[in-house]
Amino acid sequence: MKHVPVHVSLITIIEIMAILVGALSGFVEARRKRMDIVGVFTVAFIAAFGGGTLRDILLDKRPLFWVMHQEYVILIFVLTLVATPLMRTVKQIISERVIVVADAVGLGLFAVAGVAQAQAAHMPIFIASMMGVITGIFGGVLRDIVCNEVPMVLRDGKPYAICAFFGTWLYIGLQYADLVSDDAALWTSAAFIAILRLVTWKFDLHLRSHH
Amino acid sequence: MKHVPVHVSLITIIEIMAILVGALSGFVEARRKRMDIVGVFTVAFIAAFGGGTLRDILLDKRPLFWVMHQEYVILIFVLTLVATPLMRTVKQIISERVIVVADAVGLGLFAVAGVAQAQAAHMPIFIASMMGVITGIFGGVLRDIVCNEVPMVLRDGKPYAICAFFGTWLYIGLQYADLVSDDAALWTSAAFIAILRLVTWKFDLHLRSHH
Amino acid sequence: MKHVPVHVSLITIIEIMAILVGALSGFVEARRKRMDIVGVFTVAFIAAFGGGTLRDILLDKRPLFWVMHQEYVILIFVLTLVATPLMRTVKQIISERVIVVADAVGLGLFAVAGVAQAQAAHMPIFIASMMGVITGIFGGVLRDIVCNEVPMVLRDGKPYAICAFFGTWLYIGLQYADLVSDDAALWTSAAFIAILRLVTWKFDLHLRSHH
Repeated sequence: MKHVPVHVSLITIIEIMAILVGALSGFVEARRKRMDIVGVFTVAFIAAFGGGTLRDILLDKRPLFWVMHQEYVILIFVLTLVATPLMRTVKQIISERVIVVADAVGLGLFAVAGVAQAQAAHMPIFIASMMGVITGIFGGVLRDIVCNEVPMVLRDGKPYAICAFFGTWLYIGLQYADLVSDDAALWTSAAFIAILRLVTWKFDLHLRSHH
Repeated sequence: MKHVPVHVSLITIIEIMAILVGALSGFVEARRKRMDIVGVFTVAFIAAFGGGTLRDILLDKRPLFWVMHQEYVILIFVLTLVATPLMRTVKQIISERVIVVADAVGLGLFAVAGVAQAQAAHMPIFIASMMGVITGIFGGVLRDIVCNEVPMVLRDGKPYAICAFFGTWLYIGLQYADLVSDDAALWTSAAFIAILRLVTWKFDLHLRSHH
Repeated sequence: MKHVPVHVSLITIIEIMAILVGALSGFVEARRKRMDIVGVFTVAFIAAFGGGTLRDILLDKRPLFWVMHQEYVILIFVLTLVATPLMRTVKQIISERVIVVADAVGLGLFAVAGVAQAQAAHMPIFIASMMGVITGIFGGVLRDIVCNEVPMVLRDGKPYAICAFFGTWLYIGLQYADLVSDDAALWTSAAFIAILRLVTWKFDLHLRSHH
């Protein structure tokens, strides 16, 4: 595998955007489970940082992203204080459509950032793809585990993790083909994942079931 | 942030006391879920060491406390063997009041020890506070996840994690003010958390709900 | 404790065999919870690698086994693609008896490999035994947590973890006695665990309950 020039600033921007979207999904899920303000913050934090934190623990990478950038933790903390009393209003303003779109963008950004981080840690290629998918979906998996639910992404038969999986291979393929800059490969792959997710959601595509 | 003179022996004493209280909560919860002796030991172990272990994994600190001190693991092991057959008697002897008091003391001790460990690892100040709260509450969170419950501390609307949160900032504030020794700051903050928790429990204070 | 000559090749063989058995338990459990193909792969992966991964995180050992050997991850990936559509047939072919036998063998292999890895990391003796038991049972514990069940091994009152526990001490004892080669000690202890598990299963032995 060729050496990957990781653009730290780009990855940082990617992760910030993904974090805010992840936190929102945590707010919604925690409120659905009637958690208190501590639960709302904890679940938002886990949804936002869980996937990246699990990836970094598996890669043994420290300091963790949110330890280096306590400003993002404080941001979620403040959002929790502000958003919790306004949750009814927030729910009315933010439709399901907005959440799905933001979540699709977050999935693409997290997954591609995860591959790049794994490559920077010299992971083999299939593991790098998996680290991308883990980064993309495990915030949600851990969020659902804490909320005492079977993780949605593992059971709803919708191509969510699979969109991320294909996107990680598009990113890896674009790097091999070497036709575009690494920046372009990152953004293209993240956009591909987000669009693929939205198209499959729009047409309500399901994996064939074999129950 | 000034350099924090961490008194290892003091923190060690703090952690031992907190471990025994944590294990007790695990015994009670595991029995409530009708677990067998393996479950009782596992849940007691997780309740006792889970918060500190998660903190150390996040900080990348090794060896873990319980790896360095296998005597505490053996202690919980022996307590499991002894306590399990006597659980009915134990339940009659140990009232809810005793458990709540011991748990409040454990919360204070764990949280303050967590801040001190995070400061020793040069964490930024908000992250150090969070590591304290994580140390204080995640033994219980992980215990409830293993027991397939929505974690109590995230949903009951009682100011438990919040007591720990305020106490970590009292500790940080006392260090800045520099009026008392670090030992005094540790014990004062741990006592503050325990008392705040007991007062809010006594008067059955709840966070305002926004369901 | 004497220095343990860890035979890497032997441990590798042990772990591969145990991984396939673990993955099978994940397939079965994920289908029982009506998960989709992403869930089947994830749960099989967690069941297969979860115990060893948790051990390595606790020991701070990297790279993880499955990161070094992406071929095993790809194997489970391919098995998921092949096995999912054929699950009905697989269920008819593979009886409960076969699963229990394979699982008993896996338990023995995982547990003994876990002790050897912990000894290689210079863990104290009781912790090494515990690391063996964790390696043996936590794939199943994590599998059940993701599937939103109280972990079977913690509640069914059957001597499963206890078989592993005794086996780890047999292994440690054989090393001390120094009568047989370390290879012989490894295989003897793994076989002891598997047989003990099967005998207790055959006669449906339960721990005395104290509910």
